[in-house]
Amino acid sequence: MEHKEISRAVIKRLPRYYRYLGELLEEGIERISSGELSERMKVTASQIRQDLNNFGGFGQQGYGYNVAYLYTEIGKILGLDQKHHVIIVGAGNLGQALTNYTNFEKRGFIIKGMFDINPRLIGMTVRGIPVYPLEELQHVIEKEQVQIAALTIPKGQAGEMADRLVSYGIKAIWNFAHTDLNVPDDVMVESVHLSDSLMRLSYRLSSETKRMDE
Amino acid sequence: MEHKEISRAVIKRLPRYYRYLGELLEEGIERISSGELSERMKVTASQIRQDLNNFGGFGQQGYGYNVAYLYTEIGKILGLDQKHHVIIVGAGNLGQALTNYTNFEKRGFIIKGMFDINPRLIGMTVRGIPVYPLEELQHVIEKEQVQIAALTIPKGQAGEMADRLVSYGIKAIWNFAHTDLNVPDDVMVESVHLSDSLMRLSYRLSSETKRMDE
Repeated sequence: MEHKEISRAVIKRLPRYYRYLGELLEEGIERISSGELSERMKVTASQIRQDLNNFGGFGQQGYGYNVAYLYTEIGKILGLDQKHHVIIVGAGNLGQALTNYTNFEKRGFIIKGMFDINPRLIGMTVRGIPVYPLEELQHVIEKEQVQIAALTIPKGQAGEMADRLVSYGIKAIWNFAHTDLNVPDDVMVESVHLSDSLMRLSYRLSSETKRMDE
Repeated sequence: MEHKEISRAVIKRLPRYYRYLGELLEEGIERISSGELSERMKVTASQIRQDLNNFGGFGQQGYGYNVAYLYTEIGKILGLDQKHHVIIVGAGNLGQALTNYTNFEKRGFIIKGMFDINPRLIGMTVRGIPVYPLEELQHVIEKEQVQIAALTIPKGQAGEMADRLVSYGIKAIWNFAHTDLNVPDDVMVESVHLSDSLMRLSYRLSSETKRMDE
């Protein structure tokens, strides 16, 4: 399939389309118009048409979108038809939560190991997936052809660990540490800053309160 | 302090400013120019000036920003000078990870309890914070004046639980369920869709591979 350059904004929205299409499939809905999809997703129909047009336009006039086809095609675009090997660096609660989340595996993200410095965690398994000591990092990455590393460690150690992972060939970092990472241009970072998101809630709660006080 | 209407885009960026200013403080840096901040944050200096201008302009010509002052003021804007009571609905690994993250407490987010339906979890404590049965939900929310509920339960139950929380007076939902929530306009939702973020990584990995194959 030919890819033209797709804007970051569209890419950011694709997983959400994929999620909604998955829900439609679960509900047994086979086709949907951009208008109906617009109502569900609370996005304008014209945005939907524009976004999906990036991929050759799956819509047919007067018929709407074929849900299963669109779901499969967007899945392919997102690379979900491929397997990605993942490790989790940091085997605390968050690392274990990610490991326990079997939906990732259904989408092709196979967790090959967790890593920690805590001797009490090393040797433990979660869903049969072992916690290794950090000394095994390079070995496991190379042996299992790991592409993605999730970083669930404190921010103070995150920068150094990211450098180390990159030196072992990791191409994508899923960063949960409360800091931004500086990595080479060919390494991708997707950060989940939980505190940032909680602060946005707090902002809105407190500005709401201020408004009510006025 | 007078608030003019601040755009959602600026609000979304505020927590990141707050995080960088916190790091500067930790490094003992007392003042910083928009140029230096721009270099660190990889945002243009003019965007920084524009963003911070929304709050009355803390910058002084030729001096730059006073880091501690700006940190405190943005903290206030974000409502971090107030305490917010929080509950966690879903006491699995992710719920426990959130409860264990003491940084939230430092920012004024006080976790008052976890809730679950699993009898093996009920009665357990994490950092002294108990897991209650769902029957206690209304009671704890009212007694502890809880404003924020984190939702770390499967998507199939998330909609119904959100309705229930709202009926008990919850004003803000921190949603980790893999679905969007429909709530009344005066209830705020901040969703952390982990799968969406993982799919963005996967997209970039696979489009990278396709490019290399060409």
